[in-house]
Amino acid sequence: MTLPDRLQSLQALVAKLGLADTDAIQWPLLDQALTHVTADGDRHYERLEFVGDAVVRLVTASFLFTAYPDLPEGELSAIRAVLMSDRILTQIAQRYELSRYILMSPSATADVAAQDSIAAAAFEALLGSLYLSTQNLSLIHPWLDPHLRELGEAVRLDPAHRNYKGALQSLTQGKFRARPDYRIEELELVHGHPERFAAQVWLQGKLWGRGKGPSKKLAEQAAARQALAALEGD
Amino acid sequence: MTLPDRLQSLQALVAKLGLADTDAIQWPLLDQALTHVTADGDRHYERLEFVGDAVVRLVTASFLFTAYPDLPEGELSAIRAVLMSDRILTQIAQRYELSRYILMSPSATADVAAQDSIAAAAFEALLGSLYLSTQNLSLIHPWLDPHLRELGEAVRLDPAHRNYKGALQSLTQGKFRARPDYRIEELELVHGHPERFAAQVWLQGKLWGRGKGPSKKLAEQAAARQALAALEGD
Repeated sequence: MTLPDRLQSLQALVAKLGLADTDAIQWPLLDQALTHVTADGDRHYERLEFVGDAVVRLVTASFLFTAYPDLPEGELSAIRAVLMSDRILTQIAQRYELSRYILMSPSATADVAAQDSIAAAAFEALLGSLYLSTQNLSLIHPWLDPHLRELGEAVRLDPAHRNYKGALQSLTQGKFRARPDYRIEELELVHGHPERFAAQVWLQGKLWGRGKGPSKKLAEQAAARQALAALEGD
Repeated sequence: MTLPDRLQSLQALVAKLGLADTDAIQWPLLDQALTHVTADGDRHYERLEFVGDAVVRLVTASFLFTAYPDLPEGELSAIRAVLMSDRILTQIAQRYELSRYILMSPSATADVAAQDSIAAAAFEALLGSLYLSTQNLSLIHPWLDPHLRELGEAVRLDPAHRNYKGALQSLTQGKFRARPDYRIEELELVHGHPERFAAQVWLQGKLWGRGKGPSKKLAEQAAARQALAALEGD
């Protein structure tokens, strides 16, 4: 693709995103954010993805802090663990058909299974390039907050969708450099029994939470939620 | 402490930090950032620490991106894993005697072993409060970048200090929702032999890196470094 074609394509994307102040955009950074390593081994999106990952984290954290003034830290972490998942990032990327704007080799394009994770990574890199263009989040918040509001409400209204296990693991890795240990017991052999499984969360030789549920996963989520609350009170 | 006393104390801290634009500071947020849960069960630093953790991450990521234009993502992650450690955060907090400004109960003050992690947490919360005061990092970068430059150089000049295992784990958790698995073999029984241990890193049934070293830890770090490079090329 020639440079003027590429610029036109990037401008079309920026218009589609509805970014407020396009004068601030550093186009070479945006170009790099949407370049896969197979298209250019030297100038591709990975370093920008490193910055973008942190941008997503801060945008999400400050949005949740403001939107949910009454939720304790553990609940905010549990919602964030869902909002920052690859699945959600891919979903937002797809709304803007981001894949169409990513330069990659024909063999990478042909790898259908890889497209979602490439789109999620390029989306993070795109946010990294916007942050580095302005040194603030002014381009990003107005555009991303409505998505976060919509997705966050869905998670908040149905706590079963919160990722307590992910939140607990982030917390314990950060505080204790250790992962929680789950122990599962099958209480009932009846499939679908609401208390079929019991889970315990152990950390550093101490029991931090218990939970029950119809599946191992839901029992673990319930136990992780209790452990998060216990660790916060600790 | 009466409110005017507290405000005076917070103003003294802000002067010590050398922050540029003190008009922008939201003092109630700063007050909350420096309040431990034992001093006020409702208005304490934990929610702000949640935001501050993300602020530290972005400040560090964008600093490293700009300061080291030639390092690949894996090396940046390895340096960041060191710079974001509690030990470093505590070290910066101590330079400003942050503990003196944190409200907590007498029993919490008496718990000497807990003071470092309280100072690190309050330091993150302080950064969170500064970010939320301005919605950008303008108060934070000029003040924190010199610390990051000094600490980052120490790590960069001595790669043995980089935390490749930490960086690899962040990467694989993010990309594969899985932790790498290390296998260790003792090659030589001689204590201090430079190739006493051999380590392999496995992930999803595939060998990603090998390394040798005089200790298990150094062999694992060497293997993690190779795995990071391999995953980046993948």
